[in-house]
Amino acid sequence: MSALIEPRVLKGFRDFLPEMESRRLSLTTALSGVFRSFGFVPIDTPVLEYSEVLLGKGGGETDKQVYRFSDHGGRDVALRYDLTVPFARFMAEHVDELYLPFRRYHMAKVWRGENTQRGRYREFVQCDFDIVGTDSASADADTILVIARAMEILGAGPVRIRINHRLLFNRFLADLGAGELSVFVLRTVDKLEKIGEEETKAQLAEKLGVERADKVMKYVTAGAGDPGFSETLAILRSLCAAEDGEADKAENRLRQVHRILLSSGATASVILDPSITRGLDYYTGIVFETTLADLPGIGSVCSGGRYDELAGLYTNRLLPGVGASVGLDRLMAALEELGRLPAAASAPDVLVITTDEVRLPAEHALAEKLRSMGIAAEVYPDSRKAGQQFAFAEKKGIPLTLALEISSEGSEQYSLRAIATRTAKMYGSLAELAQAVKAAAPRS
Amino acid sequence: MSALIEPRVLKGFRDFLPEMESRRLSLTTALSGVFRSFGFVPIDTPVLEYSEVLLGKGGGETDKQVYRFSDHGGRDVALRYDLTVPFARFMAEHVDELYLPFRRYHMAKVWRGENTQRGRYREFVQCDFDIVGTDSASADADTILVIARAMEILGAGPVRIRINHRLLFNRFLADLGAGELSVFVLRTVDKLEKIGEEETKAQLAEKLGVERADKVMKYVTAGAGDPGFSETLAILRSLCAAEDGEADKAENRLRQVHRILLSSGATASVILDPSITRGLDYYTGIVFETTLADLPGIGSVCSGGRYDELAGLYTNRLLPGVGASVGLDRLMAALEELGRLPAAASAPDVLVITTDEVRLPAEHALAEKLRSMGIAAEVYPDSRKAGQQFAFAEKKGIPLTLALEISSEGSEQYSLRAIATRTAKMYGSLAELAQAVKAAAPRS
Repeated sequence: MSALIEPRVLKGFRDFLPEMESRRLSLTTALSGVFRSFGFVPIDTPVLEYSEVLLGKGGGETDKQVYRFSDHGGRDVALRYDLTVPFARFMAEHVDELYLPFRRYHMAKVWRGENTQRGRYREFVQCDFDIVGTDSASADADTILVIARAMEILGAGPVRIRINHRLLFNRFLADLGAGELSVFVLRTVDKLEKIGEEETKAQLAEKLGVERADKVMKYVTAGAGDPGFSETLAILRSLCAAEDGEADKAENRLRQVHRILLSSGATASVILDPSITRGLDYYTGIVFETTLADLPGIGSVCSGGRYDELAGLYTNRLLPGVGASVGLDRLMAALEELGRLPAAASAPDVLVITTDEVRLPAEHALAEKLRSMGIAAEVYPDSRKAGQQFAFAEKKGIPLTLALEISSEGSEQYSLRAIATRTAKMYGSLAELAQAVKAAAPRS
Repeated sequence: MSALIEPRVLKGFRDFLPEMESRRLSLTTALSGVFRSFGFVPIDTPVLEYSEVLLGKGGGETDKQVYRFSDHGGRDVALRYDLTVPFARFMAEHVDELYLPFRRYHMAKVWRGENTQRGRYREFVQCDFDIVGTDSASADADTILVIARAMEILGAGPVRIRINHRLLFNRFLADLGAGELSVFVLRTVDKLEKIGEEETKAQLAEKLGVERADKVMKYVTAGAGDPGFSETLAILRSLCAAEDGEADKAENRLRQVHRILLSSGATASVILDPSITRGLDYYTGIVFETTLADLPGIGSVCSGGRYDELAGLYTNRLLPGVGASVGLDRLMAALEELGRLPAAASAPDVLVITTDEVRLPAEHALAEKLRSMGIAAEVYPDSRKAGQQFAFAEKKGIPLTLALEISSEGSEQYSLRAIATRTAKMYGSLAELAQAVKAAAPRS
C-alpha cells in the first residue's frame, strides 16, 4: 500500500464549501441581474492566453506576479491576471462582429502570484462591466447607476460613491505649471488617506514648493465636509486657469453626469471627491471608488473610470469606454462582517426519509411528484434510524423531513416534520402536502 | 508608434460572444436547477493545484496532456484536467466539516492540451454531480433520474440512457475463466460500435479462443433489439455461474435500480446494455452513457458510474459513490445542430432612444422607473439619428425602442416601437407603457 498524498491546496487558493459557494453564486446571480437590467450582455474569454497578448511585447519584466509558462507546443502562455486586458484583445478581434456601443459584463477568476497576507488571494473573482464605443455622460452615469443599484440589491447598506475627473485634475496641475510632475503628485495624493494631510503636504512641498503644495492640498480637500457636488465642482474649476477650455469640458461633463444621477434619484450616495485619483491607472476621464458607509475601512468594493482607448495595443481603431470592477471577495468579506451575506440557499426543501428499502420506489416516486410541483426534494438513500436522518437534515440545512406512510386501507399518507420545531403533521393528499412544504420552506 | 500585437487566442481555446455565452449560461442555470431539485449543492475548488495532488506521486508520465509548470515559489503545479480528482482531494480534506452522504455539483472549466481536431477543445466546461458516502440503489437511481430530468429540461428531445453493471461483467469473465484477460476484453468490447461485431469477435477469439469469444459476444449483445430490462438482465445472469453470489448481488442491485426508475416514470429511456463498459475507468458498479435519439452519432453527452472509493490517494476513509458528468460543449453542439439551443436571452427588453442630449436626465429617469418595474432598459448614450438607433437595437436583439416625448402641455408621453413590425404606439401613462413592454418582450 503506497503512502497517502496530503490533500491540500496551494497558498492563496481556496476551496468553496457549499454554504459559501451558494452564497457566492447568490451574489453573482444578483449582480448579473443588475447588469442585464442596464443592457449589459455576458461574454467569456480563455483563462490561458499568449503572454504577448496579456503582457505586451517584451513583457514579463512588467509583471512578476503573472503565472507564465511554456505549454506543450513551446508557446509562451500566461493565466489572465485581470479581465480588462483579455477584453481589450476580445474587442480588437471581434469588433466587426459586434455593435457599438458595446456593453459587456464578465464575472470570472483571475490569478496573481502576489503576497498572500492581509486577506489577499492568488485566485479571485472579478466582476467587470464596461460600455465601449462611446465617450458620453450617459455612459459615465450608467456605470455609477449600476454600482448604486448593485449595492442596493446585494444589501450592502448605504454606500459612498466618490467620483472625480482625471482630466480636470491634470488641467489644474498643468495650469499650476506642475504638469510634468503629475505622476509624482498623483502618487503622493493617492496616499492621502493613509499618511494624513500634514505628511502629504510636506511630501508635495519637497518638489512643488510650499505655495503650490498648498494649492494642491486646497484642490484635493475641496470636497472635505461634503459641501455638495455643484459647490465642490465650482471650487475645483476656480482653481484652474479661467480660460482653460479643457477644464471647461471636464467641468461640463461632471455637471451633465450629476444631472443624470440627480434625475435618477441616485445622488444621495454620490460625492465629488477630488482626492480620488485611482493611482497611475490609464484613466483619462471620470474615476470613482465605492465604500460601504458601515465599513469604510475595508476600502473600495467597486472602482473604475473612463479611458480613451481600450485596445490600442492590438488595433488602431479608437475604442473609448467607461467601466468598473466589483471586488467580489472583498465585498463578500465585508457583507459577512456586517452580517448581511445572503443565507445559503442550496439545501433542498425537504428530505424524504427512508425507513425500509422496500419503500424506496414509492419514496422516489413521491420525490419526483414534489419536484414537478416546484419543490426540491432529496431522498435519503439508505435505511437508517429516523434520528440519524433528522440529524442529517439538520446538518445540511434541510428545513423539513417527510415520511411516507401507508394507511391500513393502503392509501399514502405523508408525515411532514419541521426540523426547527421538531413537530410533525400528517397530510392525506399531495396537494395539501405541497402547500404545507411551500409555506414552511419559502425558497421553493 | 510601436507595432500592433495580433489579437488572437490559443489553438483549442475560444471566446464566447454574448449570444453563445448567454445560451451557455441558460444551460448551466437550467442544469443547476435540476441538480438542486435533487438535493445537490454547489462547491468550487482552485483551478491550479499541486501536481502531486492532481497526478499522484511520480505522476507526470501518466498524462502528457496536463498543463503543468513551476510557479514563482518553485512549486510543481498544474491546471486541473477534470473535476473528479479535485473533488477527491476536496472530500479527503473536508469530510469532517461535511455530512454524508454528500451530494455536490460543480460546473467549471478544465484544461487538456490534447489534439484539437474533431471539435475537441483544450479548454472546456464540465458539469459534474456525485453522491458520495453511500453504496445504494437509491443513489444509483437518483443519478439516472437527474440525467433524464436534465435532458428533458434542456430540451434535448428523447434520450437513451444505456446502463450496465461492471461487477456483473467482471463476474461473467471470471466465471468464464477469463478474469485475468478482463482489461483486454474491456478494451476490445469498448470498440464494438466502431469496429462492428465480426471484427470484435475476431479480436476476442485471438486471445480467448472461439468458444469463449462467442460467449462474450452473446453477453455484450444480449441487449440488442432491446428485449426489455428484466429479460436482458435474466440472460446476463444466466451467462454467469449459477452459484456466483457476487453476480447475485449485482443482479439484485440492477433490479432494485430498475424498480425505482419504473416507479418514477423514467424507464422509457433506460436500456440495459451490456456492451457499455466505460473503458478502463475506475468504475466498480453501475455504469451509464446517454445518447440523443435524434443525434446518436455525436456520442454520449452524459456518462458516469459507481466507484468503490473516491479519495483513496489521499485518505484511508472509504468513500464509495456514484456520479456523472455532462459534456456541456458536446451537448451545446448537439442542441445547435438540432435547432434546440435556447434563444439568447441577454438583450434588454427596451432601448430608450436619445434624440437630444438635454433629454438624457429624463430618459435615464424613465429607464430607472422601468427597471424598478422589472423591465430591462438600456439608454442609447449618444444623440444619433433615430434610424441608426433602431439599427443598433435590431443588431443587438432588443425587441423594442422607446422615445420619450413631451406634449405641448408639458406631460410625458411614450412612443413604443416594435423592431420586428416597425410599428409604433403612443402611451400616456407609465403603467400602460410597462404593461405593453411586458406583453411584447415576454422575457421580463
